[in-house]
Amino acid sequence: MRDYPVAENLSLVRAGGRLDLTFNRPDRRNALTHRMMDEIGAVLAVVRDDPDVRVVVLRGAGGNFCAGGDLDAMADLPPAPPAGAPDPLVAPYRAYGDVLAALNCLPQAVVAVVEGAAVGGGLGMACCSDVVIARADAKFGMPEPRVGFIPSQIVPFVVRRIGEGQARRLAVTGRVIDGRAGRDIGLVHHCCDDDAALETALARVLADILACEPAALATVKRLVLSVNDEPDVAVMDDAADSLAALLRQPAARAGIGAFMAKRRPPWAG
Amino acid sequence: MRDYPVAENLSLVRAGGRLDLTFNRPDRRNALTHRMMDEIGAVLAVVRDDPDVRVVVLRGAGGNFCAGGDLDAMADLPPAPPAGAPDPLVAPYRAYGDVLAALNCLPQAVVAVVEGAAVGGGLGMACCSDVVIARADAKFGMPEPRVGFIPSQIVPFVVRRIGEGQARRLAVTGRVIDGRAGRDIGLVHHCCDDDAALETALARVLADILACEPAALATVKRLVLSVNDEPDVAVMDDAADSLAALLRQPAARAGIGAFMAKRRPPWAG
Amino acid sequence: MRDYPVAENLSLVRAGGRLDLTFNRPDRRNALTHRMMDEIGAVLAVVRDDPDVRVVVLRGAGGNFCAGGDLDAMADLPPAPPAGAPDPLVAPYRAYGDVLAALNCLPQAVVAVVEGAAVGGGLGMACCSDVVIARADAKFGMPEPRVGFIPSQIVPFVVRRIGEGQARRLAVTGRVIDGRAGRDIGLVHHCCDDDAALETALARVLADILACEPAALATVKRLVLSVNDEPDVAVMDDAADSLAALLRQPAARAGIGAFMAKRRPPWAG
Repeated sequence: MRDYPVAENLSLVRAGGRLDLTFNRPDRRNALTHRMMDEIGAVLAVVRDDPDVRVVVLRGAGGNFCAGGDLDAMADLPPAPPAGAPDPLVAPYRAYGDVLAALNCLPQAVVAVVEGAAVGGGLGMACCSDVVIARADAKFGMPEPRVGFIPSQIVPFVVRRIGEGQARRLAVTGRVIDGRAGRDIGLVHHCCDDDAALETALARVLADILACEPAALATVKRLVLSVNDEPDVAVMDDAADSLAALLRQPAARAGIGAFMAKRRPPWAG
Repeated sequence: MRDYPVAENLSLVRAGGRLDLTFNRPDRRNALTHRMMDEIGAVLAVVRDDPDVRVVVLRGAGGNFCAGGDLDAMADLPPAPPAGAPDPLVAPYRAYGDVLAALNCLPQAVVAVVEGAAVGGGLGMACCSDVVIARADAKFGMPEPRVGFIPSQIVPFVVRRIGEGQARRLAVTGRVIDGRAGRDIGLVHHCCDDDAALETALARVLADILACEPAALATVKRLVLSVNDEPDVAVMDDAADSLAALLRQPAARAGIGAFMAKRRPPWAG
Repeated sequence: MRDYPVAENLSLVRAGGRLDLTFNRPDRRNALTHRMMDEIGAVLAVVRDDPDVRVVVLRGAGGNFCAGGDLDAMADLPPAPPAGAPDPLVAPYRAYGDVLAALNCLPQAVVAVVEGAAVGGGLGMACCSDVVIARADAKFGMPEPRVGFIPSQIVPFVVRRIGEGQARRLAVTGRVIDGRAGRDIGLVHHCCDDDAALETALARVLADILACEPAALATVKRLVLSVNDEPDVAVMDDAADSLAALLRQPAARAGIGAFMAKRRPPWAG
């Protein structure tokens, strides 16, 4: 069993192939500090190589997913650098982009369970998840321009998730939308009216994910994400090689055999 | 009239500018063998240059569109090659990617009429069609990871059709969705409750397509698909040249004259 | 106050940070002539640098947004050039692409209010706007192939707005859809049943836009649009630099202070 780093602002629970990663600053609506971003990054660096984790469930403690960057930190800036010198503000924000990219391409499945606010950086983490389950009264948006600054590292992930046309509307209005509107624009896969429906949807999604063979899941996820970066023919070349390699593995042999015999495959427990 | 190749697993009917290409292995839910993929490719290679075909209607015999790759073929693999040698499994799968690409960029309009299963390779053909008409109880998805392998050549076409955010959810869950859910994510253009509604929708779509001048249709389809591959300014340059060339043609002169005189243009029959 | 060019086919009204740009050829359903396209371009070239304009409202006089290219101009072509010489038809159409690109990347917010027809070039302008508010009975589409030619410069903007899968369906059918169907495919952000609802939606969107700090709005809009053209890491680098620069500005300092004190920020009036 892998060792996970100690994290002040997160709670981690592993069981049955599942890692629950819960944002745990409920008194600040789980707003992100640089420290908390670093902690998320450190956890993801371990998860990535942990064969005991097949799915990560992201969630916020206390009724909110994540309220974005903590304004207290933004209110109290370090002095501006001398002209021409790099601003020390840049690197810590840019590092959050690397955390989002690591989340986005995690080889395991990632499910975001959204209650309350998922704005700014919180919206970004939802957009880097494979499945988003949200309460109908959840709140999604990029309200930063109303306070005089911008959503930053989340921008590519938001655009890839909801498309340029919905992203620019959210960007120029700063409007926060609910889970139902989020579903209508492709941000939310499962919109739930109450907590019971949320838990039912989560259980079903987890069962679906655990029905998939882990190496196949990681491979198809990588291929899907590569379409944004690679020409179609390169994706198809990679896909044909990957399919052949998987078909040679014992897992696929067992899976096809189980399917034909109407048995459960070994990884489905 | 062009000669079409003899195809064991397809049925072909041409009439009135329309080619009905029907997958015809109903006892196997029209699952794809390499032979059947090759047959589809051979037909498309003729269609592409057949001026008598203005629209292709893809459909499956026996109540299913296409159930994806035939598992019997996958159960019985050729021996693995010696280390370092290319795996003979790769090329036949990769060839299916070329068939999908040929379908995707056919100069004629393509309509998919989906009843029952359109999964794996069948989903790919739906995603390469210009218009998808489906029964509400149709089944769309990429369940391969539940059997231990992956959807392969279809990946770029699925992502281009429904976006990365919906594609990754289908990929990591293997979940099969119905026609109504398919409409909600942009996979299905017309969702129909019963067979009568399906035929009505098809007749209307065919009438729309046959109202369009064939060279104009082929040109705008090519331009739309080029946005994925070319910078916007290159698409606009091509579009301006193409518009000027079409406006010089007798068809456009006749079309504009007919429009002003409130007559039907010559190609509308 | 900036000087705006005199425009025969447009009406311009500036007040309170808002520029109303109204297409004003109502007897021709605001169809585009080359002259009118040039006038729109000339106005946008001034707007771009006008600090008194924070939002542009595009609208058509007389119950239609814009019916696309004027067919009268297309009916009466200049003679074809000698073989090998450039066709004088090309450049004026291509110039409209530059007008659309300028509209698309205007640093201010752009709201399109669509009543009646928004087809061809009119659809293009809607797709270059940040927010589209439409009556349920508005008409959107690319019917050009029914008359024997093609939508041209609008193609990249339509595909970026509604995706390839919806764009190719509209392209090969020439089908005109209403505001409700436009909302279902992501073309329309707010679909309104009557004029009162349209005005209410517009007032709310304008209030949202004017709640945003103008430099922050321009920056996030630029970043969102850059995702289409730049690798994700380049967007993230730009975003981190831009965020740091904005946080150093008096506007952000005032905005964060106002937010914490639960006051309105200075730009919100």
